[in-house]
Amino acid sequence: MAAGPDKAIKRPLYLGVDGGGSKCRAILVDADLQLLGSGLGGPANPLHGFEQTLNSIICATDAALAEAGLQPQAKSELISGLGLAGVNLPSLYQQVKNWSHPFAQLFLTTDLHIASLGAHRGEEGSVIVAGTGSCGYAQVNGQTTILGAHGFPFGDQGSGAWMGLEAIKVVLLASDGLGPSTCLTQMFAEQLGVEGVMIVDKFAGAGSSEYAQLSALVLRAAEAGDAVALSIVKEGTAYLDAIAEKLWQTGVKRLSLIGGLGQALRSWLAPATLARLSEPLMQPEWGAVYFAQQEHGNISGT
Amino acid sequence: MAAGPDKAIKRPLYLGVDGGGSKCRAILVDADLQLLGSGLGGPANPLHGFEQTLNSIICATDAALAEAGLQPQAKSELISGLGLAGVNLPSLYQQVKNWSHPFAQLFLTTDLHIASLGAHRGEEGSVIVAGTGSCGYAQVNGQTTILGAHGFPFGDQGSGAWMGLEAIKVVLLASDGLGPSTCLTQMFAEQLGVEGVMIVDKFAGAGSSEYAQLSALVLRAAEAGDAVALSIVKEGTAYLDAIAEKLWQTGVKRLSLIGGLGQALRSWLAPATLARLSEPLMQPEWGAVYFAQQEHGNISGT
Repeated sequence: MAAGPDKAIKRPLYLGVDGGGSKCRAILVDADLQLLGSGLGGPANPLHGFEQTLNSIICATDAALAEAGLQPQAKSELISGLGLAGVNLPSLYQQVKNWSHPFAQLFLTTDLHIASLGAHRGEEGSVIVAGTGSCGYAQVNGQTTILGAHGFPFGDQGSGAWMGLEAIKVVLLASDGLGPSTCLTQMFAEQLGVEGVMIVDKFAGAGSSEYAQLSALVLRAAEAGDAVALSIVKEGTAYLDAIAEKLWQTGVKRLSLIGGLGQALRSWLAPATLARLSEPLMQPEWGAVYFAQQEHGNISGT
Repeated sequence: MAAGPDKAIKRPLYLGVDGGGSKCRAILVDADLQLLGSGLGGPANPLHGFEQTLNSIICATDAALAEAGLQPQAKSELISGLGLAGVNLPSLYQQVKNWSHPFAQLFLTTDLHIASLGAHRGEEGSVIVAGTGSCGYAQVNGQTTILGAHGFPFGDQGSGAWMGLEAIKVVLLASDGLGPSTCLTQMFAEQLGVEGVMIVDKFAGAGSSEYAQLSALVLRAAEAGDAVALSIVKEGTAYLDAIAEKLWQTGVKRLSLIGGLGQALRSWLAPATLARLSEPLMQPEWGAVYFAQQEHGNISGT
């Protein structure tokens, strides 16, 4: 590698990017995996905006480079690992692969894959993600299993967006006298200032992250013993329990629960699920670095 | 009224418009409610496109005028009744009310109201609509009750769109081994050419009418005894049964089941619901005419 003003940095440089529906994180590390810089970008789920996704990745990368004292043009020497939501769909995977990217190399995989590599410090393993969406992922002996990851409103039981939509449904049913009454009705009125059909007005065209914001109300109502909210939370966590069971059946050694709702949902999981969970070791963007390093090693034949 | 080349037509002229998510129907009648002409326009749900809705209404009106041998400028003498999907939401109602329309008078109400007025030939009564969406409506002694009409994906249990989404959910769960197997999986593969996660790819961003097209598969699978499809259909019709019961409690004299799925769902309704259904007498666009005539009469003091 050519020496320059930053000759103290041990090359090659790896970039790890974790792109999701609300934001994008990038970290820059040297050949010894020493952290040189990190950066944030905007939403990066290509399903909800392809150009925005590329912009967010570049933005986060330039921020990480700047923090490391490097110029934007240094992108051309980066071995990049990119984990993106949505690219489990073949059409989106191909669209991102076709990107004329500015990096030395770009290795693309799912956000689930890098989340798992991060949680298990580059080793194979499995994760359940419970945040705005929900899903399960396992990698054992090179074999990948993905459960769920279908996105809202097709699936994602137990996720924040799913809980939010279920909450809207039960409040609307109750307002028609066609479902049991629930304290969610009052919470909606107090917190959101809406009731009855006005709820529809407020959420028409809303995205999954707006639904997910309602999950805090559902969890609070469930804690307070509201039967309707309890039923939503239990249905959701029963799905996550079933995912956990399926993941264990793959022969995986470690399973971590991650995502924005992971902590809040722990107390609702079956004891058998909870007992076998391992703490995640590193963040997903680190998983993207491990992925880049492994793929680069494979290509280099090392 | 001024005499003209069309002096044989008995004035005032009434226009009745039924605007929905996929199309818009208009009829033109004379003072004795003799049909002079009818016309079709495009989608007219202001929730999914305000300008498109106005265009569709004008389009359907001009077609009805042309069939009656009248010029487009005759719109300025029409007493118009307009029943629109979506205007049960106050914001949309106001937006349409603010329209600088080309008619002599415009009386606006919901698609539900005109459907009920049509089904009961201008009299009060009630309807259950089961088509792309689902809901219940009753009018008794001037008091209106609306049940459901929340739209997709908030509610609309028993509707075509709801059945379609539920079908996608169970097929995806089955593909993960997290739900019971169903012959819907094979039907999706054969009829739509998709399975597993490809279903998500195909339906990402789909509208309610695209989901509703799947309801035919659900009904066919239920007829064939598929337990998963049966459970969807039974959950949906139980909701419609509950709506029927609530509507009877308003003291209504007649209840009609209408909408694109009405006929197909009859055999799945509870016998008690079915026994009390009355045939709809006229179409919703006629309900819009009755509404215009009644409102015009109220204003004229007759």
